[in-house]
Amino acid sequence: MEEKLSHTPEGEYCPIRATLSILGQKWVPHIVYELGGGKRRFNELAIRIGGCNARTLRDRLEELEDVGIVRRKIVNKMPPWVEYDLTPRGRELYDAMRPIQHWGARYLSAASPA
Amino acid sequence: MEEKLSHTPEGEYCPIRATLSILGQKWVPHIVYELGGGKRRFNELAIRIGGCNARTLRDRLEELEDVGIVRRKIVNKMPPWVEYDLTPRGRELYDAMRPIQHWGARYLSAASPA
Repeated sequence: MEEKLSHTPEGEYCPIRATLSILGQKWVPHIVYELGGGKRRFNELAIRIGGCNARTLRDRLEELEDVGIVRRKIVNKMPPWVEYDLTPRGRELYDAMRPIQHWGARYLSAASPA
Repeated sequence: MEEKLSHTPEGEYCPIRATLSILGQKWVPHIVYELGGGKRRFNELAIRIGGCNARTLRDRLEELEDVGIVRRKIVNKMPPWVEYDLTPRGRELYDAMRPIQHWGARYLSAASPA
């Protein structure tokens, strides 16, 4: 995450800006939304999200791990089996995103909303 | 906005994904958040957001106009004076983002949250 996105123009760290900058990354809202449905294996998550390439998805998941929103669990080493899940605070973020989903269902349900 | 971000893997348009893809763009959550404080002139908005270059900000504002979240009002032609404001549905989106702000204030108030 870039510094400037989580700081005020005066250079002070701001938790709200930090949050907005996490969400304002391509695919991140989608990832939180999909994991809100329960834990997923990497490939499963990639398929459900659709269109996000594996490299980007892996990077995003790592960043979300770093900020404590996602956890990665190695279920089995060989053959490799890794699951991704929301942490408790990640689940709270998912819940906090619900009003936005409602907004979307209300205002963007036609493909051409304007 | 890219098609794939607003469609299910099966290719169906999904209003929730469409919403997530609007928010999942760099600076967009910041723009909605700042305009939640009231109408702003372009330069004023650029300064308050901080770090977003003018070209990107202009592009984002145009996209947000296209989806009916932001409105652009020409207050004066010469000297040019343009104001940006949230539309009523844009204001509802801002309100829908409040729980996310609370989440940030709760969990990211230390710069190193993990």
